[in-house]
Amino acid sequence: MTLILDAMGSDRYPDPEIQAAIETARLFSEDVLLVGNETLLAPKLKTADPANRRVRIVDAPDILEMHEKPVEAAKRKPRNSMAVGLELIKTGEGQAFVSAGNTGGVMFNALRTLGRIKGVQRPALTAMFPTRVGHCVILDIGANADCRPDFLVEFAIMGSVYAEKVLGKSSPRVGLLSNGEEAGKGNQLVKDAYHLLENVGLNFIGNVEAKEVFAGEADVVVTDGFTGNVLLKSSEAVGKLITDVLKEEMSGSIIRMAGALMVKPAFLRVKKMMDPREVGAVPLLGIDGLVFVGHGRSDAHALVSAMKVAHQAVDIHLLDAIQTAIQDRLTQTEADSTH
Amino acid sequence: MTLILDAMGSDRYPDPEIQAAIETARLFSEDVLLVGNETLLAPKLKTADPANRRVRIVDAPDILEMHEKPVEAAKRKPRNSMAVGLELIKTGEGQAFVSAGNTGGVMFNALRTLGRIKGVQRPALTAMFPTRVGHCVILDIGANADCRPDFLVEFAIMGSVYAEKVLGKSSPRVGLLSNGEEAGKGNQLVKDAYHLLENVGLNFIGNVEAKEVFAGEADVVVTDGFTGNVLLKSSEAVGKLITDVLKEEMSGSIIRMAGALMVKPAFLRVKKMMDPREVGAVPLLGIDGLVFVGHGRSDAHALVSAMKVAHQAVDIHLLDAIQTAIQDRLTQTEADSTH
Repeated sequence: MTLILDAMGSDRYPDPEIQAAIETARLFSEDVLLVGNETLLAPKLKTADPANRRVRIVDAPDILEMHEKPVEAAKRKPRNSMAVGLELIKTGEGQAFVSAGNTGGVMFNALRTLGRIKGVQRPALTAMFPTRVGHCVILDIGANADCRPDFLVEFAIMGSVYAEKVLGKSSPRVGLLSNGEEAGKGNQLVKDAYHLLENVGLNFIGNVEAKEVFAGEADVVVTDGFTGNVLLKSSEAVGKLITDVLKEEMSGSIIRMAGALMVKPAFLRVKKMMDPREVGAVPLLGIDGLVFVGHGRSDAHALVSAMKVAHQAVDIHLLDAIQTAIQDRLTQTEADSTH
Repeated sequence: MTLILDAMGSDRYPDPEIQAAIETARLFSEDVLLVGNETLLAPKLKTADPANRRVRIVDAPDILEMHEKPVEAAKRKPRNSMAVGLELIKTGEGQAFVSAGNTGGVMFNALRTLGRIKGVQRPALTAMFPTRVGHCVILDIGANADCRPDFLVEFAIMGSVYAEKVLGKSSPRVGLLSNGEEAGKGNQLVKDAYHLLENVGLNFIGNVEAKEVFAGEADVVVTDGFTGNVLLKSSEAVGKLITDVLKEEMSGSIIRMAGALMVKPAFLRVKKMMDPREVGAVPLLGIDGLVFVGHGRSDAHALVSAMKVAHQAVDIHLLDAIQTAIQDRLTQTEADSTH
């Protein structure tokens, strides 16, 4: 297979991307298409790996500057690295696209170049959250700030496929994020989505609160992109607050610092759990092509993690599986409405 | 002053409430009205404190059972402890009401018995969150799952008064919880509220994400009750997940347990920060009377914390301050609309 990496996405582009492309090509013994401004990339690639044969630069002369509004800039600069990279999926030259650039920019370019899977109204940014007992899939975590209830049903279907294929869950338990476990609790969107989710042939376990999510009682958690983003960001922020306070407290005395050294492995486990660098990248499910978004702050290590996630998605035929599940849903809905 | 305590609210009522009432009366050398089923309470109070003179039972013969839907049950049982207790505020026999009962039940009874401060469309459950550098006020954390933008303006006004009076902040920085710091980010509610908040005479600092909230960059954070509840519950859940994992890791070997002992003070600080028992209770701001809601799981210690919060609110004339601020807003709005 051939993976496509946007060379111009991360905060410190293109150096982390160049490094990550080289390592990924080496890791899988496969070609990697590195997309970006060739004049900038070619000499750097040569220096980084003179013997390189697998990383191929695809020229995208336009550069989206960090200060520019991403969507507006993408419109004015059609030969930007996201547009060009996504085009390679369309032509079949590559099977998955990874970018550490602006999420809105990736979404816009992905919708314009690849479009949505037939039957999906909105693509969803899909995260893997650590839980007490493993991981769970949460979507949407930021692509759509306002949703209709039927969007959430599509999120549930796509999320279930993702959990099945990536987490190996045979009948993923789908929870609807709410402010109480009891049916009937929630805002209007959640109340309406609840009724739809009961009848969609998924393993719907009802409403879940954050407590159940982190306890690992659901494999898939469905929510609108605004709420999902708050859930994501508050989890990260509390994790950071706690570790900052602990570090501060533990540098207070020699005894404490000695104690801290002894418990360091425990901290490393928590840190790893919470570390976006480990995650690498999140998929934009519902796009008609495999598209992954990484953190702007990604270093080479994080980008390699991202490329591994993309590689696995191709390996497990994720796109086909989602297209099939959504198509089945469409067929079912049509059958239901003719009765 | 006289505080009013719902004797029938907590999961293990009325024993924690009886204990808390006795301790509170002793602490402040003031009377406490303990509201609930007299037949149940009188003998227990006598046993707990034979010499008691300050805790006075006010009979409320109806009991709201835990399995009953709170609002529906409150309608059928008008002489329940919440209704009777809140009535005592209305008659002036008490100045603040505390209950560890169901939040929906308290809200319903408070609206029915005391009503809203003129000019407040929706009362807001208002929490005090720990931050890196102190605390911040967050509302609404669960009273209103769906909000209109003008509700959020009222939350901002009430929250500012609360931050000023309770946190001692002279010009509280008000942030609007969003999924990005840039103006224009957010769902439709947030985008609309943003414009209103810019022109309301508060120290509005714009959108904030969870990161800024926990870093202490705002004194007041405004959001709808559904999102606020997700923020609250996910913070608690992540805190619990981290401490559970750390405990588990640190009981893994003798060395680690020794290390854990040494760093225990650091953990206690974090635990205290995150502990609802320390908080005690949260006010329902916007009700025409001082009403506080505690955790169902509250023990006597937590209930005493709750009573202290209520006591302080009376001391600092919180209700007057909120009424004045809201009235000023009403006057300003009328003045603006006649131009």
